[in-house]
Amino acid sequence: MDQKNLDLKFGEYKLENTQGLARAGTLKTHRGEIKTPVFMPVGTRATVKSLTNETLERAGAQVILGNTYHLTLRPGEELIEDVGGLHSFMNWKKPILTDSGGFQVFSLSSLRRITEAGVEFKSHIDGAKCFIGPKESMQIQMKLGSDIIMAFDECPPYPCSNDELQSAMDRTHRWLKICKEEMTRKESLLFGIVQGGLSFEHRKASIEQVTSIDLPGYAFGGFSVGEPMKMMYELLPKISPLMPKNKPRYLMGVGKPIDLLMSVDAGIDMFDCVMPTRVGRNGKLYTHNGEINIKRAQYKKDLRPIDENCSCYTCKNHSRAYLRHLFQSGEILSAVLLSTHNIHFYLDLLNEFRDVILNKEWDSYKAYKLTQLVSVDA
Amino acid sequence: MDQKNLDLKFGEYKLENTQGLARAGTLKTHRGEIKTPVFMPVGTRATVKSLTNETLERAGAQVILGNTYHLTLRPGEELIEDVGGLHSFMNWKKPILTDSGGFQVFSLSSLRRITEAGVEFKSHIDGAKCFIGPKESMQIQMKLGSDIIMAFDECPPYPCSNDELQSAMDRTHRWLKICKEEMTRKESLLFGIVQGGLSFEHRKASIEQVTSIDLPGYAFGGFSVGEPMKMMYELLPKISPLMPKNKPRYLMGVGKPIDLLMSVDAGIDMFDCVMPTRVGRNGKLYTHNGEINIKRAQYKKDLRPIDENCSCYTCKNHSRAYLRHLFQSGEILSAVLLSTHNIHFYLDLLNEFRDVILNKEWDSYKAYKLTQLVSVDA
Repeated sequence: MDQKNLDLKFGEYKLENTQGLARAGTLKTHRGEIKTPVFMPVGTRATVKSLTNETLERAGAQVILGNTYHLTLRPGEELIEDVGGLHSFMNWKKPILTDSGGFQVFSLSSLRRITEAGVEFKSHIDGAKCFIGPKESMQIQMKLGSDIIMAFDECPPYPCSNDELQSAMDRTHRWLKICKEEMTRKESLLFGIVQGGLSFEHRKASIEQVTSIDLPGYAFGGFSVGEPMKMMYELLPKISPLMPKNKPRYLMGVGKPIDLLMSVDAGIDMFDCVMPTRVGRNGKLYTHNGEINIKRAQYKKDLRPIDENCSCYTCKNHSRAYLRHLFQSGEILSAVLLSTHNIHFYLDLLNEFRDVILNKEWDSYKAYKLTQLVSVDA
Repeated sequence: MDQKNLDLKFGEYKLENTQGLARAGTLKTHRGEIKTPVFMPVGTRATVKSLTNETLERAGAQVILGNTYHLTLRPGEELIEDVGGLHSFMNWKKPILTDSGGFQVFSLSSLRRITEAGVEFKSHIDGAKCFIGPKESMQIQMKLGSDIIMAFDECPPYPCSNDELQSAMDRTHRWLKICKEEMTRKESLLFGIVQGGLSFEHRKASIEQVTSIDLPGYAFGGFSVGEPMKMMYELLPKISPLMPKNKPRYLMGVGKPIDLLMSVDAGIDMFDCVMPTRVGRNGKLYTHNGEINIKRAQYKKDLRPIDENCSCYTCKNHSRAYLRHLFQSGEILSAVLLSTHNIHFYLDLLNEFRDVILNKEWDSYKAYKLTQLVSVDA
């Protein structure tokens, strides 16, 4: 890793290089610097599923994500605050970004009622009636002790009418003002979220609204909600140049390796996604030569590692034949080893993106990498 | 670990110290020495459930166990032989002991028919008709490339009649002769198995039969099959002195920490049991101050590790509060971290037993340790 001293102030983001729209930079948080472009493994319930912190550190994770919705339901932010915050609770020493709970309230809970104050919903665990609005979300995230706190937004479904888009956008904007007032924790950075669906006009208007409030970073919400990815690929390069140059841009909930490539190419700096752990548990593995599905019979006696060029524990120690056996047998170690590889692959990939951008080799690299990432069962 | 050079020949077992019936010794296998008393983590399907080899090595595992019954059904010994044997398949470099499949054929499969040639049964995976007898068991274990191969025996249920005991014993003896002829792999050691249930007379007769065949080690089978442990505690000190002094004694499928203490006290050298991983996954943890059940509400905000005196990854990094949360949330990492601790605890405990015996402090230690191990929810 590059060790250049950038002399950043808390909350500052410095661009180190750009090529076309692609960017490499550094964000300074209370718990250290984050080098972008960056992938943030998702630790929904205070754990990146099946992985120890040691495995995450070895893979080079710089920052992980926690889910406000899940953590407020269990074990509850009061308990986490009492034991010293989320970092202390899970013994993770690097930065943590928490989402606002907004997305999950809309996608996971039942019987929600949306008012100007927030969202009333029933817990998916025990049916208990709960309420989260912008104020509650800020309070929870501050109690968790998050380094990057996300604004509470309304994420409209796909597809939806222009009226719905506009209304969610406007509410997101009003809620952002409340979030900014409420978020008083000095060690945390608040990021605003741009909505507006797949409409350029709405996105443009939302960017104007959201970036009119001065914040250390901004995100695009409302992508990866079921739309064809091609639509996102087309929209991102049009809207990301409208964002402030000197602030990190976080594309929430995205995506597959190819989505990351396309999005970095469009000027995105930060990503999170459950993909590497979730599909890993289900036997799908990413390699520098495309995807493989470990359950296929062709790997029965395949003594190669998942990826010859990968330096993760799984690839250094185990063959496809063994991993297939573990997967077919439903062994817990299968989830552990396959997730280990996929997370390592994602983090390596983003490091590679960063190096290539810093070296001004992005254009040629991108074309070459695209063909690699789309192969299947190498 | 003591590094004394004992100059052992392949297959030799040397007693280093004894105190009362308790013994400390070393067995030389093709893949290195095994210091006894020793606990062997169970890797049923070519994996000690949820644990990486690295975790096992850090915990100090000297030898692990593989199950012939499970491995012959999936992925099959032919596949494992084709990829270079079980060590190579799972990338485990230290010794592996495999059981004979006998116990599982009797306990797990359905519709079994026992003949003098072996046991016909239906696979618990797909119902396929299978057959394992002494010859087949030796062939499978040799293909697996096991360092210690167990004889194929008939394990009678508890309770059972004296006639059943006698018949199983006699068949076990006849089968042992076949096993010895069939087991031709020069790098493997064949261990015989003593049966005879809870009857001193039958055990004595079985010991005479089995040890009349010269082998590098002998086991007690047929314990821990549902009988009150007190009966085993009473019988072991009477029968273990009847075993050859210069051969390791392996008590199959035992047991809880207190069972290990009582059995080492009765002159047993080797153990295996699924207990530490199985109960770990279910939230029960062993400590040097007794057992704790992590799901109990009293651990909700308990910032202490499982065991203050344990040096495992889990105890060095995580609190009871966090582990309870993972367990309550059904997270995979819970199985990983709790199994890591319990395996570490078992291996530490047996190392402690060995050190105490080598230092001639067993008698005073035993009384003190007994009271410690029986406490609950420290």
